Amino acid sequence: MSQANAVVLLSGGLDSATCLALARHHGYQCHTVAFDYGQRHRVELDAAARVADHLGAASHRVLSLGLGGIGGSALTDDNIDVPEEQGEGIPATYVPARNTVFLSLALGLAEVVDASVIYIGVNAVDYSGYPDCRPEFMDAFRHLAAVATRAGVEGRGPTIEAPLLELPKWAIIRQGADLGLDYGWTVSCYQADEAGRACGRCDSCRFRRQGFAEAGVPDPTPYQ
Amino acid sequence: MSQANAVVLLSGGLDSATCLALARHHGYQCHTVAFDYGQRHRVELDAAARVADHLGAASHRVLSLGLGGIGGSALTDDNIDVPEEQGEGIPATYVPARNTVFLSLALGLAEVVDASVIYIGVNAVDYSGYPDCRPEFMDAFRHLAAVATRAGVEGRGPTIEAPLLELPKWAIIRQGADLGLDYGWTVSCYQADEAGRACGRCDSCRFRRQGFAEAGVPDPTPYQ
Repeated sequence: MSQANAVVLLSGGLDSATCLALARHHGYQCHTVAFDYGQRHRVELDAAARVADHLGAASHRVLSLGLGGIGGSALTDDNIDVPEEQGEGIPATYVPARNTVFLSLALGLAEVVDASVIYIGVNAVDYSGYPDCRPEFMDAFRHLAAVATRAGVEGRGPTIEAPLLELPKWAIIRQGADLGLDYGWTVSCYQADEAGRACGRCDSCRFRRQGFAEAGVPDPTPYQ
Repeated sequence: MSQANAVVLLSGGLDSATCLALARHHGYQCHTVAFDYGQRHRVELDAAARVADHLGAASHRVLSLGLGGIGGSALTDDNIDVPEEQGEGIPATYVPARNTVFLSLALGLAEVVDASVIYIGVNAVDYSGYPDCRPEFMDAFRHLAAVATRAGVEGRGPTIEAPLLELPKWAIIRQGADLGLDYGWTVSCYQADEAGRACGRCDSCRFRRQGFAEAGVPDPTPYQ
């Protein structure tokens, strides 16, 4: 029996890995895509490939993307430091229009692999400071997807699923753990070392560590 | 006196060069961006740099973009031929979600250079088969831009200008010629040779040649 296709955005972090586990659980044949966008945390790309492999993705792609040529973020610009604690407002780790760009590329891929759904692991709770992690952004992109592509014009444009949007970190972790996902395959730290070990101090590490504690799930993260 | 900033998508072709001439004429300081997306017609990138230079762009960027990893188009996939004549429906040269991806990256750049407007040279007349060259696509992207970025959240998200959307090719050429634009700097052909000389036979060449004839403007295009 043939399965429906999904495109799953996979960063190598905890959220997107959970998304892939959910998409597989929902019965989709999953085409995963990671982006090499000059990020400092390149060990994420290794993690993404590992997660795709362990969770049985039908294909995995790494698309290169010159976001460093745009600048404006601590994640792609060497002149901007990653802060250890988040201040007020939109964080320095915000990459301008990142989710718009990622979803756009996923939309192109969805057309090519004939996917009826795109999964993205955005989360409005922990990343409330990121404009492109909000429900109104997701709705705007859903509308765009319906008019932007050949598939959309033919009435079979992909839906956009953001199943983690309203979940706190602990609930995401609980869901993945229930599906048998080993979070030791994932890397969330913005400043992980080459072996993928986390700093334990950045925002991302603190949200993650706290999430495992609140979920009552043992934290498998290797720390430096 | 400081000028307002614009981001201008520049492919090196006739339409986007006209867009830049218009944006300059409207008084904007223009930050141009071209994409290296594995297109066959790479001489376009040289043309884009030439046009940016001649028209006094404040900055010019070439962003790399792994669209070849997605495939699905005669322009990025070596296994699909560029047809000499357009058939029914959406052409083989359609790159899935291309304008969505290009505008997304322009949106990120607009945030970084504090641009109040993005110019894109899409045209619904000659490219009626491309879903992402239609007015409804432009409207959907305008709405997305208003919610997707920090600038948008702060109420100063960029507007999207598509000044050529409803113009026939001859009217575009007439406008550019009136502004002193030398179309000899531009390359439209999908199969130009390394010197930038056009094939004269592909859809893009035929639309262009016909446009010059109808505009009553001498065609400066070097043909093979």
